[in-house]
Amino acid sequence: MKKYTQINDIKNLQELIKEAILLKMNPYEYAHLGKHKTLVMLFFNASLRTRLSTEKAARNLGMNVSILNVNDAWNIEFEDGGIMNTNSTEHIKEAAKVISQYADVIAVRAFPSLTDKAKDQSEYVLRSFEKYATVPIINMESATAHPLQALTDAITISELADKPRPKVVLSWAPHPKALPQAVANSFVEMMQMMEVDFSITHPEGYELDEAITKNTPINHKQTEALKDADFVYVKNWSNFKDYGKILNQDPNWMMTEAKLGKAKFMHCLPVRRNVVVEDAVLDGDNSLVIKQANNRTFAAQVVLKHILEGL
Amino acid sequence: MKKYTQINDIKNLQELIKEAILLKMNPYEYAHLGKHKTLVMLFFNASLRTRLSTEKAARNLGMNVSILNVNDAWNIEFEDGGIMNTNSTEHIKEAAKVISQYADVIAVRAFPSLTDKAKDQSEYVLRSFEKYATVPIINMESATAHPLQALTDAITISELADKPRPKVVLSWAPHPKALPQAVANSFVEMMQMMEVDFSITHPEGYELDEAITKNTPINHKQTEALKDADFVYVKNWSNFKDYGKILNQDPNWMMTEAKLGKAKFMHCLPVRRNVVVEDAVLDGDNSLVIKQANNRTFAAQVVLKHILEGL
Amino acid sequence: MKKYTQINDIKNLQELIKEAILLKMNPYEYAHLGKHKTLVMLFFNASLRTRLSTEKAARNLGMNVSILNVNDAWNIEFEDGGIMNTNSTEHIKEAAKVISQYADVIAVRAFPSLTDKAKDQSEYVLRSFEKYATVPIINMESATAHPLQALTDAITISELADKPRPKVVLSWAPHPKALPQAVANSFVEMMQMMEVDFSITHPEGYELDEAITKNTPINHKQTEALKDADFVYVKNWSNFKDYGKILNQDPNWMMTEAKLGKAKFMHCLPVRRNVVVEDAVLDGDNSLVIKQANNRTFAAQVVLKHILEGL
Repeated sequence: MKKYTQINDIKNLQELIKEAILLKMNPYEYAHLGKHKTLVMLFFNASLRTRLSTEKAARNLGMNVSILNVNDAWNIEFEDGGIMNTNSTEHIKEAAKVISQYADVIAVRAFPSLTDKAKDQSEYVLRSFEKYATVPIINMESATAHPLQALTDAITISELADKPRPKVVLSWAPHPKALPQAVANSFVEMMQMMEVDFSITHPEGYELDEAITKNTPINHKQTEALKDADFVYVKNWSNFKDYGKILNQDPNWMMTEAKLGKAKFMHCLPVRRNVVVEDAVLDGDNSLVIKQANNRTFAAQVVLKHILEGL
Repeated sequence: MKKYTQINDIKNLQELIKEAILLKMNPYEYAHLGKHKTLVMLFFNASLRTRLSTEKAARNLGMNVSILNVNDAWNIEFEDGGIMNTNSTEHIKEAAKVISQYADVIAVRAFPSLTDKAKDQSEYVLRSFEKYATVPIINMESATAHPLQALTDAITISELADKPRPKVVLSWAPHPKALPQAVANSFVEMMQMMEVDFSITHPEGYELDEAITKNTPINHKQTEALKDADFVYVKNWSNFKDYGKILNQDPNWMMTEAKLGKAKFMHCLPVRRNVVVEDAVLDGDNSLVIKQANNRTFAAQVVLKHILEGL
Repeated sequence: MKKYTQINDIKNLQELIKEAILLKMNPYEYAHLGKHKTLVMLFFNASLRTRLSTEKAARNLGMNVSILNVNDAWNIEFEDGGIMNTNSTEHIKEAAKVISQYADVIAVRAFPSLTDKAKDQSEYVLRSFEKYATVPIINMESATAHPLQALTDAITISELADKPRPKVVLSWAPHPKALPQAVANSFVEMMQMMEVDFSITHPEGYELDEAITKNTPINHKQTEALKDADFVYVKNWSNFKDYGKILNQDPNWMMTEAKLGKAKFMHCLPVRRNVVVEDAVLDGDNSLVIKQANNRTFAAQVVLKHILEGL
């Protein structure tokens, strides 16, 4: 693996999932693979799970970890050819090349603005690191994708499915703040690669990028969509067409125990209780969110392992 | 030891102090005890000594350390059953369970508001971590207690006492800002467990929680209280009854060389010079503050050692 | 080496450079030298290169590293004898002595105010750490000096010079913000110690401290100064006489490919493109900035190695 910035960097998903599950059983088996190797984690945005699980994954492999909140340094310029006489102190061309000399792998988190659709869709932060860095890049959630989360979700579904082709539904939920489409996008792409019966339910007008959803079935009637589901992945996203807007906060879209039925409940966390999902679901036996979060470590670890092996 | 959130988690104080002193002489003796174990340190508030000494203690035991300033992530909700549609992004139920999967031990610092007495007294942050985390919790100073500091102080007094039952006085001092009662509370509880002649002196009306001071003698006349003292522990706290208020800034309560006499001077640091204590005391031979700070490492280390042995 | 706070802490520059180049070829040769040793890095100001390269250098030597943004703790008082009843919570006397107990080496970054010349020139932050700490101090850029950068630059010139006595020119450049003289000062001092034909070019009135420049030739005509140069080090600094002021932003002083000719371009980074230097230079074959940044690791590592050997 030369990098992990998007789902399709995965060559053989089934093999990768199997390997992650083996790492979970024996996390220190490759503790010498990362000797004298450094993971630099760069955060343009806040993090809890990704920060702690990726750090742990790297340490399980024997790596050194350096963590930098980019806001503790200074503004980085991503435009080419401009006269840098305002707020940006350093250009990504220098920053990415320089950090590559202190790192064997660079992991980056950079959320979208949700105000400038074209700029967000260009993934200029992540692509600039890919372009100018001279070491492999890992996406710790970018403007449009969260492939480590999607791998986590694939591992979790693989571990817990009790039938060959489970029914998986991605169900939109209300939220008081405008959130990215990144988690939903990567989950959709991942489910398209798996042996699952996958569909999406969301209010009319909340379509994700069609280039991602392709021919995945979309149902605007939540109850109908959830019927006989084995796994229900709940997630808010702000509007994609009317970009970054909150057009719907209808509490009827909140996930409840009644709607969920016997399905397993999944969410990437953090989750707002009684807005996105009611307490009874999170506190009930069908919630997988804590197991999902645990798999974050092994998703990151299997990716790091493959990248280290390819150095 | 299953956790260390309060003084009475200590089973055998004398043994623990002896062990800490042995660790100080041979800090790397148990350097393999923490192999592949992770301490996650969570700071809701600023720290210098606690941060550096606890990190060093964990490393002395061979542990990995992850440090997260919670403000670099997001607001955590502690109320149960509410609709999380305002400022909090994640509930402690998820946060504590999730972090427990990346940590073998979680250490938490969370100061009181000093505005809502009932809420502070409930120790809702610390208790929530204790309730929902699935790994041992260490208190790195909570709303009402600072048990690592108190253990440090017990070690320091044990090391330096030159008589079987030294006289120890806790003396209130003025301060321009409203400070918690946590250090004073834990020091009082610790002295009640030791073979010392212990008393407290503070201005009238500055009584600490009676549930903590119990029958410890209190004297409102500082000079009288300090007479023949062997150790004088100086500390400001804001008013407990008129909660969080500064009712007294009388500079006559500042500790001076003249008042201290031959006694040893103790303070947890940070200390405001010439407000809490005059320069001559801190710069004189009777000040133990630097030795106390050194013992922070070994107090944390002996606690971590016992917790690791109990995993 | 007992400390590295200024250029003249170097005993034998040529030996040190040779050793740094050897470390670059074999960075883990002394990986056991730092076992159970801790580097505490204290940042009063932002950092990217210094932070990551010094951390990597310490890890290459097997050290533990603790990093503290001092702003995450509280204000430290540097004045002696004052009544600390305003903004400062802890005096440097305590802070430096305490941290010395958790560290084997302390590295400090503290920029100048650029408003109070006498105070900046006194280097009160760095000198206070030197005075009160009980372990060696490394300067990670202070008010008036950046000796790790200067050592990096000396290594880079030594590696890449293709003649016995290359011509090196320090050329001032415009900048929209008032910047310290630190990098320029240390570069001047370093070049004075090397076998180079060294001169400085800057606009009239932009003289650096004469106690530092001594009899180094200064030419106010940039084109003339750059003639036949082998290495051109470009750097902005704010006015030293009219302290901290920006008296000149003349874009004609920006470095261009035309002016540079066949000389190698050097800069400490971060650099503002098309303000300090045009894109064509940074993107061209004569730019050494990425190589310089790589040498930051080995400058820090050779200094740490000598300090560890002297413990």
